[in-house]
Amino acid sequence: MAGSERLGVAIVGLGGAVATTAVAGMELLRRGRVDTRGLPLAGVKGLGLVDYGALTFGGWDLFEEDLEQAARNHAVLTETQLEAVAPVLRRMRPWPAAFNAKFCKNIVGTATRKSSTLREQVRAIRADLTRFKQEQGLERVVMVNLASTERAVDLTRPEFATPEAFEKALDADDAEIGPAMLYAYAAIVDGIPFANFTPSVAADVPALMLLAKRTGAPIAGKDGKTGQTLLKTVIAPTLRDRALHVEGWYSTNILGNRDGEALDDPASKQNKLDTKGAALDSILGYKVPDHVVQIQYYRPRGDNKEAWDNIDVSGFLGQPMQLKLNFLCKDSILAAPLIVELARTLDLAQRRGEGGVIDALGCFFNAPMSPDGQPVEHATPEQQRRLMAWLGRDRARQAATPQERLRG
Amino acid sequence: MAGSERLGVAIVGLGGAVATTAVAGMELLRRGRVDTRGLPLAGVKGLGLVDYGALTFGGWDLFEEDLEQAARNHAVLTETQLEAVAPVLRRMRPWPAAFNAKFCKNIVGTATRKSSTLREQVRAIRADLTRFKQEQGLERVVMVNLASTERAVDLTRPEFATPEAFEKALDADDAEIGPAMLYAYAAIVDGIPFANFTPSVAADVPALMLLAKRTGAPIAGKDGKTGQTLLKTVIAPTLRDRALHVEGWYSTNILGNRDGEALDDPASKQNKLDTKGAALDSILGYKVPDHVVQIQYYRPRGDNKEAWDNIDVSGFLGQPMQLKLNFLCKDSILAAPLIVELARTLDLAQRRGEGGVIDALGCFFNAPMSPDGQPVEHATPEQQRRLMAWLGRDRARQAATPQERLRG
Amino acid sequence: MAGSERLGVAIVGLGGAVATTAVAGMELLRRGRVDTRGLPLAGVKGLGLVDYGALTFGGWDLFEEDLEQAARNHAVLTETQLEAVAPVLRRMRPWPAAFNAKFCKNIVGTATRKSSTLREQVRAIRADLTRFKQEQGLERVVMVNLASTERAVDLTRPEFATPEAFEKALDADDAEIGPAMLYAYAAIVDGIPFANFTPSVAADVPALMLLAKRTGAPIAGKDGKTGQTLLKTVIAPTLRDRALHVEGWYSTNILGNRDGEALDDPASKQNKLDTKGAALDSILGYKVPDHVVQIQYYRPRGDNKEAWDNIDVSGFLGQPMQLKLNFLCKDSILAAPLIVELARTLDLAQRRGEGGVIDALGCFFNAPMSPDGQPVEHATPEQQRRLMAWLGRDRARQAATPQERLRG
Amino acid sequence: MAGSERLGVAIVGLGGAVATTAVAGMELLRRGRVDTRGLPLAGVKGLGLVDYGALTFGGWDLFEEDLEQAARNHAVLTETQLEAVAPVLRRMRPWPAAFNAKFCKNIVGTATRKSSTLREQVRAIRADLTRFKQEQGLERVVMVNLASTERAVDLTRPEFATPEAFEKALDADDAEIGPAMLYAYAAIVDGIPFANFTPSVAADVPALMLLAKRTGAPIAGKDGKTGQTLLKTVIAPTLRDRALHVEGWYSTNILGNRDGEALDDPASKQNKLDTKGAALDSILGYKVPDHVVQIQYYRPRGDNKEAWDNIDVSGFLGQPMQLKLNFLCKDSILAAPLIVELARTLDLAQRRGEGGVIDALGCFFNAPMSPDGQPVEHATPEQQRRLMAWLGRDRARQAATPQERLRG
Repeated sequence: MAGSERLGVAIVGLGGAVATTAVAGMELLRRGRVDTRGLPLAGVKGLGLVDYGALTFGGWDLFEEDLEQAARNHAVLTETQLEAVAPVLRRMRPWPAAFNAKFCKNIVGTATRKSSTLREQVRAIRADLTRFKQEQGLERVVMVNLASTERAVDLTRPEFATPEAFEKALDADDAEIGPAMLYAYAAIVDGIPFANFTPSVAADVPALMLLAKRTGAPIAGKDGKTGQTLLKTVIAPTLRDRALHVEGWYSTNILGNRDGEALDDPASKQNKLDTKGAALDSILGYKVPDHVVQIQYYRPRGDNKEAWDNIDVSGFLGQPMQLKLNFLCKDSILAAPLIVELARTLDLAQRRGEGGVIDALGCFFNAPMSPDGQPVEHATPEQQRRLMAWLGRDRARQAATPQERLRG
Repeated sequence: MAGSERLGVAIVGLGGAVATTAVAGMELLRRGRVDTRGLPLAGVKGLGLVDYGALTFGGWDLFEEDLEQAARNHAVLTETQLEAVAPVLRRMRPWPAAFNAKFCKNIVGTATRKSSTLREQVRAIRADLTRFKQEQGLERVVMVNLASTERAVDLTRPEFATPEAFEKALDADDAEIGPAMLYAYAAIVDGIPFANFTPSVAADVPALMLLAKRTGAPIAGKDGKTGQTLLKTVIAPTLRDRALHVEGWYSTNILGNRDGEALDDPASKQNKLDTKGAALDSILGYKVPDHVVQIQYYRPRGDNKEAWDNIDVSGFLGQPMQLKLNFLCKDSILAAPLIVELARTLDLAQRRGEGGVIDALGCFFNAPMSPDGQPVEHATPEQQRRLMAWLGRDRARQAATPQERLRG
Repeated sequence: MAGSERLGVAIVGLGGAVATTAVAGMELLRRGRVDTRGLPLAGVKGLGLVDYGALTFGGWDLFEEDLEQAARNHAVLTETQLEAVAPVLRRMRPWPAAFNAKFCKNIVGTATRKSSTLREQVRAIRADLTRFKQEQGLERVVMVNLASTERAVDLTRPEFATPEAFEKALDADDAEIGPAMLYAYAAIVDGIPFANFTPSVAADVPALMLLAKRTGAPIAGKDGKTGQTLLKTVIAPTLRDRALHVEGWYSTNILGNRDGEALDDPASKQNKLDTKGAALDSILGYKVPDHVVQIQYYRPRGDNKEAWDNIDVSGFLGQPMQLKLNFLCKDSILAAPLIVELARTLDLAQRRGEGGVIDALGCFFNAPMSPDGQPVEHATPEQQRRLMAWLGRDRARQAATPQERLRG
Repeated sequence: MAGSERLGVAIVGLGGAVATTAVAGMELLRRGRVDTRGLPLAGVKGLGLVDYGALTFGGWDLFEEDLEQAARNHAVLTETQLEAVAPVLRRMRPWPAAFNAKFCKNIVGTATRKSSTLREQVRAIRADLTRFKQEQGLERVVMVNLASTERAVDLTRPEFATPEAFEKALDADDAEIGPAMLYAYAAIVDGIPFANFTPSVAADVPALMLLAKRTGAPIAGKDGKTGQTLLKTVIAPTLRDRALHVEGWYSTNILGNRDGEALDDPASKQNKLDTKGAALDSILGYKVPDHVVQIQYYRPRGDNKEAWDNIDVSGFLGQPMQLKLNFLCKDSILAAPLIVELARTLDLAQRRGEGGVIDALGCFFNAPMSPDGQPVEHATPEQQRRLMAWLGRDRARQAATPQERLRG
């Protein structure tokens, strides 16, 4: 039975706000101090997902502080919640991380591993995973990337085209291979499921997509769909269905956590904007000429973020209307449960023997992946329908009521 | 071929803002002065819907002014648009309407028909329809109710339970039979399709639902889903899917047209609030304790309306977040194309031999109907999927791209 | 020296959110755990105001719980702040209050004083004040009304016209004399300064205004200006100065504390709406036809409140524009420092020998008072100028910089 | 009498949206087709301002189209308003303008004067003014700069320090002297009043401020205060007075007219941001660390602009609150009446014999000027008080009621 097994979740960026919130949250859930609110698949029973209690966390970070200290700094948990799990968090300390200042300028960590070559770094990552499984007695492991956004790279380089070319580039310490790609490679090459919750380039390099298919490693998406893009991909399908023509969509974001700081580097921000831009045009079926996305580091908010969207549409008789959205949300509170569900669904995929891109997990990502260049679905309601269909593949799914979900 | 036939659309409230906008809009479309923007089914080809050009409008109103004068007062069209179709509108004058001041206090018209009994009123309505078909050479007619909202009535009265009881109540000039019910009866009894775009009680009386099944008259829904409830039923499914618990939803509306004036009567407003209230709880699967809906007549806006929604949700670890929506929209610009599509789809249903409640048309209504007490679907994305499936029943549907839609 | 004296602040509604926040806040300030942020007159030095440290609190409430328990229920303080002052708050318990269910329907307390006549109630209040001064060794006392809003009464009744008529009405147990009036009378008759931070009728009864002049009791205003009306009276003067004509102003409020609950009684709400309505027209100099104010009890917010305002203006060439305000604020956090400043300024007025209406304190109130029927100033910037001029009457005022203010 | 005289208003950028709106508006007012709504000083009578009817417009532009064509393109006037004044506008054509592509990249005009040297350009401008007065029979002229925003220059250059140095720089065709400076010089050197309604550097060069004092030319401010900064300088004083500490202020703007296009050049935008940034810190008395101002060219809006502001404050006990402003306004509708009032007040200053910086006109500018390095007042209410005091200097001013204002 899936429920009794133990699943390791190895997180790149374990000391970050999202990861510490996920770790603390699963511990609070285990102790019955919170319910399953916010966990999208809590109501899905009997379809083979491991229980929340089966998850064991570990991972890397550039900062060496223990998770209690990290959680205290991020200030996402309430004081009472933090006190309840402080002893558990205090015992957890990230493993030193691979880092490359050329890929992420605004973040300076102290716990970087001083490896001389890319190959050595890969070896170290794989060794960490092996040790993690042994020490914790884990049946299986999935890897999730939550590290700060890196700068963009050119996906069409020949070095990124095939597993073979990529291996050579690794051997040659290719300067365009960033840390996220390294972690992805280290997981995929051993058939370990990998999800990239950031806009950094990782498993979306063609070489690694091919490799995942060969090794049977389930992979999925890029850049977690938590806030503004979630709303955008919920509303845009209805604007399309009602034939309301989108003349412009102005999206502005303010956020004040380490993520926002990383995005203050224009190179990293571009990567983020790229993953956010494609969804709208794809859903509508035409290019919105004035689609503007702004991200602003704004200290007073801390981990809270705020999105303000203004949408200009024209309707019947060409007449203009406006819709404005203002989302006052919490980055980690929205993201943490999604990476928990990603870990559980990727693990399920692997046990089902599915490898390569699992496109049924698209609802979790701003930039979903699709296998073999098939068109990507961005509309959230349709993604949700596909996820539910995928989960219930083997048997008739009985939709859980929301009340049952809350009961967990 | 459906396209070459002529379909009559008999509107209760022909002089209102929505109806005049629909009439003018179809004329502007015929002349190539506007595109099909805002018409949800413009991109659906070859499935048997009559062309927009096939629609011929007529109908009743309490105000006797011609449609040019009415359109000028409503100020929905631009000056240029109005001038282009003024000669056509000037020739159209509503037929005198049935009215009952006890059902709609804030509206006082001058063109009410002085009928002494309900039976005489029904006879007059049916005669109007017959004359309409003959004079215009129409193959078929559908009826759409756009009149001002009436006060609520008790749907569980025995007089409303069966067609037979209803007939007796008609004979007895039952004081609880309002004008909207009369019009619905007059259509349904002759097998004419009927749609109720207002919150008034009409074809949703059990007696009339049964009668529609017997006569084969397609009927559908109640209270057009144009603005705030549209957004609500688009966003709520995703809040449910992400397990974000809705603690409160505060919806406030300001509008300044005749509709708003009618809703200034508390009895009429209650009817409206009832149709808006059920959707949210139905989608979420639990009762939102603080779901507040306010509608405020506010003169400065005229036909424009504005909705402001504040949604309080709690997510992972019970933490609170807020989402606010601000929709600056135009009542008639959103509603007019929907009644055009309702006329086309109800007509298609009849030609297909489908009678009684057509639940595939639920996406057009705040209060959709379902046959035989089946659960009602309120989630807009799922309603849209059902509409598309229903339309494409006979053949494989090829989804039109939005660009093709705009080309009409 | 003013600073070394001790000033008693007797609060009607001591267990409420505003009062407990004020009491706790002054204690936190004394201990250096918070700065003077939010205290408008913190930067005003050397003009005779008593120090914050001189304030000693006491008062009445319908609920008998101690202030620690009350503060815990109101959940305004952070957990850390509450723990720091819990021992002090625990020792403070309100005195039993006068109450009249006919004046405030939605609030049911347990600690009401069972007095048989109005005269006995007045005697009890005065005895409470005497005991308060003696037990605490206070030089002087001021009274502030913070109790839940009562229903409106007719200010033009002959019983309310003169002190003599009022005394007779008291003797006759007049059913129109509500608790707020009783407390006001009990203070004023002994020359004790009285401020009414609620919309209830109290010292604004003509009889009590005259009495205050005779006894030399400084009195001021009605209904604290903390949120929406503050913004309204800040923005309206500039709309006037720029000749932007206000076509409509739609104000909606949601709040979930005991105040909101009291306002759920329509009679109490009307009293509140009356005090909020006059300011706008008075500033603009004309009646805004569509000025709508809505207050909605909305549980999810607790003590936080939110105001959404939509303002329709027409400008040059008659063209329309819109301004929208959204204030996410905290009722008690805004109100508590104002009652602290009211206590200090009323006390200063008395020491200066000023009695009756102190119109220089108008900036603190939605419904300021003016002596002898003079016009009332509602514009906040002008009120602020007058307050500053009044404070600096005796000597040249040196405007403190904001930095100096924060230092306290 | 001032009223019977004729005052010329020479506008740099006569074909722009603001100028054409002002010209058309004064014509519509003359014909009684609009009232004085939006004209701030319409209610000020008998203090020596020339009547609105006395204003005669002329000016330069890079685009040679006549004003009817220009007004049609800007689409600020309603169709009816435009038709009413089209014959007058059609007869008005701008004079060819001085231009320098190095100062304003995104605007390319066709009617630039092909002058070989700066001196020749100055001579041409002065000749235009002389011809304007003679042809139109004008007693006096004022100049207003409304041209697109130029890039910033270094105000501390020695060439800009004194009139003498500036003259030499002119002789040397100094590449840092932009068109706005040239126009300012041409006006000031002849004692003609000059106002700069744009963020470009013009009369704020120290050399020209000194020159204005010598020649007696009244000058005033920089960058018209029409929208977002107006609100900011209205609200900030009250935040200060209530001791609410501003932690961050995020201001974002979207606009789609030629102004917005010009600001799409980062160099021009910086100039704009500079003039907007200083006001807040100046009013509050401390530096707001997270004060962010964004301006975004966004085509769907045309001349309409929209500002969204989010303000984070901390109040009593350090607790956070938020205020959000959303201003849907019309650039030219707000700006045009201000330049009309600037023309009238600068003319009054000159007739009163006041030269150099007229700081009483500060309320019209995002960046007011003050004489001789005195501190600048940014708070709108205080600026308004100073303007009113300055206007009423010679006699007791009787404040006009708003109704009287509307009557004009």
